[in-house]
Amino acid sequence: MAEERPYHHGDLRHALLAAAVEAIGESGVGGLSLRDLARRVGVSHAAPVHHFRDKAGLITALATEGFDRLADALDEVRGAGGDLLAIGVGYVRFALAHRAHFEVMFRRELYHADDPELRRAQQRAADSLRAGVSGLPAPIDEDDRTRIVGLAAWSIAHGFATLWLGGALPGDALGDDPEAAARRVLGHLFRVPGFG
Amino acid sequence: MAEERPYHHGDLRHALLAAAVEAIGESGVGGLSLRDLARRVGVSHAAPVHHFRDKAGLITALATEGFDRLADALDEVRGAGGDLLAIGVGYVRFALAHRAHFEVMFRRELYHADDPELRRAQQRAADSLRAGVSGLPAPIDEDDRTRIVGLAAWSIAHGFATLWLGGALPGDALGDDPEAAARRVLGHLFRVPGFG
Repeated sequence: MAEERPYHHGDLRHALLAAAVEAIGESGVGGLSLRDLARRVGVSHAAPVHHFRDKAGLITALATEGFDRLADALDEVRGAGGDLLAIGVGYVRFALAHRAHFEVMFRRELYHADDPELRRAQQRAADSLRAGVSGLPAPIDEDDRTRIVGLAAWSIAHGFATLWLGGALPGDALGDDPEAAARRVLGHLFRVPGFG
Repeated sequence: MAEERPYHHGDLRHALLAAAVEAIGESGVGGLSLRDLARRVGVSHAAPVHHFRDKAGLITALATEGFDRLADALDEVRGAGGDLLAIGVGYVRFALAHRAHFEVMFRRELYHADDPELRRAQQRAADSLRAGVSGLPAPIDEDDRTRIVGLAAWSIAHGFATLWLGGALPGDALGDDPEAAARRVLGHLFRVPGFG
């Protein structure tokens, strides 16, 4: 084994998460292992075990980072006065820029779903999405409707991003620019009365 | 190595595909290997190599089977007079009933995307989806609009199914029945003027 490189505590954690992003990009989440991450970063196997305990712990940390970054991205769009469509396009942009995070964030079987830090980050992202949907004309059952509208918006943005990342969408109909394409496709949902 | 079980040609191919579905269900597509499939089915490693050549060839066969089953499912909904919403719900139902197929079908990097059998099956599924979208009021640019509407419908159904399968959707808002939940969420898109 090569001599261990010196790391400050936070730096090593960060380096291990970056290595996980790299590993998922190369061979998907199925091939991820703490042993491989240790090798990539140049530390002993004990280091990732110390930081994350096990593979699910590592993925929990990665998902937490993902939800925080998603919340940051959505807050930025809302801060710039973006409407719901802009938020949907921002969601697609996030997915394309953070493939590895996006690949694990919505698969609860992969991580410790009750981790407090993860739940805090999920709540931040959910609050930001929900704030984007608010301000709709009030129907009889506002809460329920707002929820369902939000889930519809989430579903279409998530589906578009997933299909685009998989290379499944027809290039001849949509062109090469994912954000322009997202604007056209998501625009159909957001023209529904009530989407504001 | 255990003695090989006798198989007719078509039966063995079928058994290998069924074993692939089982393996993906257990540990995802990342852990899939022809060697493991041979072991599961009780044949030599040469057997899956003969049928599929490599892992991408196996996934190509699995995706082909998936697109054919999806086309069958959508044709059945249309044959029973189902509207676009019913087709969307049928898509979600398909995804939940065929998780392993659904996991690989829309990830072109995993298979031989130019395989003629695969392309035939994809075309069948695409034609069936497209037929569901047709009959919309004709706008100025009918072809383009029909395409974008179809992609929006596909995105929301795909996103909903993916999020449901990942356990990401809030159970308190949607309940336990995925089809009833899909009907509520997809219904929002399909109330857009032009969705008929």
